[in-house]
Amino acid sequence: MEMVFVNQAREHVGEEITMAGWVTHYRSSGKIHFVIVRDGTGVMQCVVKNPLAILKNLDAWDGLTQETAVRIRGTVHADPRAPIGVELEAEEVVVVGPSEGYPVAPKEHGVDFLMDHRHLWIRSPRQAAILRIRAAVIHATRDFLDSHGFVVADPPIITPAAAEGSTTLFPIDYFDDTAFLSQSGQLYMEALAMALGRVYSFGPTFRAEKSKTRRHLTEFWMVEPELAFCEFEENLVWQEQLVSHIVQHVLATCADELHTIERDISRLETIVAPFPRITYDEALARLAEAGLPLDWGEDMGAPHETALAGMFDRPVFVTHFPVSLKAFYMQPDPARPDVALAADLLAPEGYGEIIGGSERIHDLGLLLQRMDEHHLDLAVYGWYIDLRRFGSVPHSGFGMGLERIVAWICGLDHVRETIPFARTLNRVWP
Amino acid sequence: MEMVFVNQAREHVGEEITMAGWVTHYRSSGKIHFVIVRDGTGVMQCVVKNPLAILKNLDAWDGLTQETAVRIRGTVHADPRAPIGVELEAEEVVVVGPSEGYPVAPKEHGVDFLMDHRHLWIRSPRQAAILRIRAAVIHATRDFLDSHGFVVADPPIITPAAAEGSTTLFPIDYFDDTAFLSQSGQLYMEALAMALGRVYSFGPTFRAEKSKTRRHLTEFWMVEPELAFCEFEENLVWQEQLVSHIVQHVLATCADELHTIERDISRLETIVAPFPRITYDEALARLAEAGLPLDWGEDMGAPHETALAGMFDRPVFVTHFPVSLKAFYMQPDPARPDVALAADLLAPEGYGEIIGGSERIHDLGLLLQRMDEHHLDLAVYGWYIDLRRFGSVPHSGFGMGLERIVAWICGLDHVRETIPFARTLNRVWP
Repeated sequence: MEMVFVNQAREHVGEEITMAGWVTHYRSSGKIHFVIVRDGTGVMQCVVKNPLAILKNLDAWDGLTQETAVRIRGTVHADPRAPIGVELEAEEVVVVGPSEGYPVAPKEHGVDFLMDHRHLWIRSPRQAAILRIRAAVIHATRDFLDSHGFVVADPPIITPAAAEGSTTLFPIDYFDDTAFLSQSGQLYMEALAMALGRVYSFGPTFRAEKSKTRRHLTEFWMVEPELAFCEFEENLVWQEQLVSHIVQHVLATCADELHTIERDISRLETIVAPFPRITYDEALARLAEAGLPLDWGEDMGAPHETALAGMFDRPVFVTHFPVSLKAFYMQPDPARPDVALAADLLAPEGYGEIIGGSERIHDLGLLLQRMDEHHLDLAVYGWYIDLRRFGSVPHSGFGMGLERIVAWICGLDHVRETIPFARTLNRVWP
Repeated sequence: MEMVFVNQAREHVGEEITMAGWVTHYRSSGKIHFVIVRDGTGVMQCVVKNPLAILKNLDAWDGLTQETAVRIRGTVHADPRAPIGVELEAEEVVVVGPSEGYPVAPKEHGVDFLMDHRHLWIRSPRQAAILRIRAAVIHATRDFLDSHGFVVADPPIITPAAAEGSTTLFPIDYFDDTAFLSQSGQLYMEALAMALGRVYSFGPTFRAEKSKTRRHLTEFWMVEPELAFCEFEENLVWQEQLVSHIVQHVLATCADELHTIERDISRLETIVAPFPRITYDEALARLAEAGLPLDWGEDMGAPHETALAGMFDRPVFVTHFPVSLKAFYMQPDPARPDVALAADLLAPEGYGEIIGGSERIHDLGLLLQRMDEHHLDLAVYGWYIDLRRFGSVPHSGFGMGLERIVAWICGLDHVRETIPFARTLNRVWP
């Protein structure tokens, strides 16, 4: 008899099956035992009605403590009251692994306690649902990019230099030399786009930021598409199509998970491309009206992003930032060189920036001038400059933060729940 | 007029299209110009027959040097002599970016020169084809696992301790503490399997190995599936199904790339599950017959793996290794405790180990005993031990090295060509 997963049980009504998992709750009403079991794909109620039902490796039914591992044989019955529409009438319960004194009881624990027990906390239905939604976001991202001719290409993690400033780098002892953990694969993705056309990376990136906010991890995953022969406007279209695809895929495939975490899906159903676009100048005007004035050239903080995003029912692009606020490689607008052909995509509900992107400078002279203004060491960037010497073309790309988009889709307070084992200023354990 | 990629040109015979890319060769026969252009998806011959054809941004046709970026308008014609079955009759060629003195000419360069110019070398049709095959292997791996209910879950890269010995760790300066780059996500994947059932990771791993061989990189990508309620034999079936799926997917989708790199695909067409299995003891007997004797308990080296793999037309599992040769967490065979329920999968043609896997110890007492024998610090592994305290179940998993499987499928001499920017003992640049 093949093992059936909880999320497949609906297809086996009336059949005898075996399932295996871990007890989340046990209760008894006289002679009937109720054993609630999770198996990683979902949670199912198993009912033991038959007084001759078999219990193996355990003396009494009430020994089925939280997280006891069990293998259960029984018959699937339709039950419209059950969250998954079925329950299992069990004939045999075999204890595979006992569980005594499981520390993460279904009650309120402090964050530090939960993070110290992250290896167990991930078993809770809410945390497991978030991780399954994360997996669905990854799948949707890759599926969208693969099916549109993007070639996945992994930039190096161990790097000799920094793409975005050197104050937030983690140094590595590389044999007897020093190297750094990558903050972004972007510069390498530009080289790869010239080789392969449309490319993307999807891997971990690292920032040694000392800020402890609900949006920052020291280790986080980024998707970084880069497109040869692609200009600013087309780049925005790719971004909104991708985000729209991700949200609609999660809605279509993660109904149980969204229900488990009690997400208000009406806030996600509206997330369909195209997304509104406002310039930085327009953003400043709107912010001033909202009582959050900024001087031209000042960067937006979380309150500004939240206020702006709250004016729309879907993510909003803020475009044409002052050149001084953006990275050296971003293309100035030829019609107005004090602003860059760069955009941030701000998610609704206070989640702020989920994507940053731009057209890249493709002119050799302009790039050298910008690098000089940023006091960058040309020797370190020699290979990157080569990309402008040999067949340089207009190209654009963007970086999407996986944990931020998952936090938004799940409606979470903190990104630490969006990744299996979060790394923060004070935590590299477990 | 939408831009058409070379790998889509076959679908546009008789149509006027625009394509964009980089010149790989230019030649002229009197009044007819031949411009061979790559665009990242393939290579196409463009023929300029019309004496009134337009050349923009360039004085003369013979200025179309290697890697000049161009945008070309013309009509697609079927041409059975062309490797891709079509050519473009060009009416207009616009130079987008010039290329003077491109250093990676289509001639023999030394390895150091090519690796120093890796940011350009990846543009060569051979290197680009290998990277596209790598992408196809990644796609096939994820596709197989996603469609079989595995949840992708990313273990941390920054870790406090080592899974596989501490001599090959890269230390990181983590604020004012020391942490290490992950050598394997395995232990974390075990925690995740208990939460999510079937899981896999797919990310970079790091080994500070001082060996300079054709099979070693310091930074390489691994797929690490882990399955709760899965025993040794089932684990082998997943491995052979996965490898079989990957190879058949590459054959089905990368015909042009395999042709470009001149791979003998008859050596790949036989790679269909099931794969043969021999025990370590049987392997020793076969090796002795082949003139490569080993004492029981000795590990196999590259020559032994090559000899064994050469005895089969598809990958071969070597199973039941001496416990002393394998990691502390591998389950001893209950019927014969001096061997582990562990297997290596050896690829043909001298490529050696591409997968290592095992059933894991699930008994708390046995795990503690093995950790004691390995002098491991129980405090560091406290969270891992917890997995055996609370609902421990039989579980198994494996790790597949992406670069090794790509090297085998592509028939390469060295893994450094299988990854965009290889990291080795002496190289973190570009």
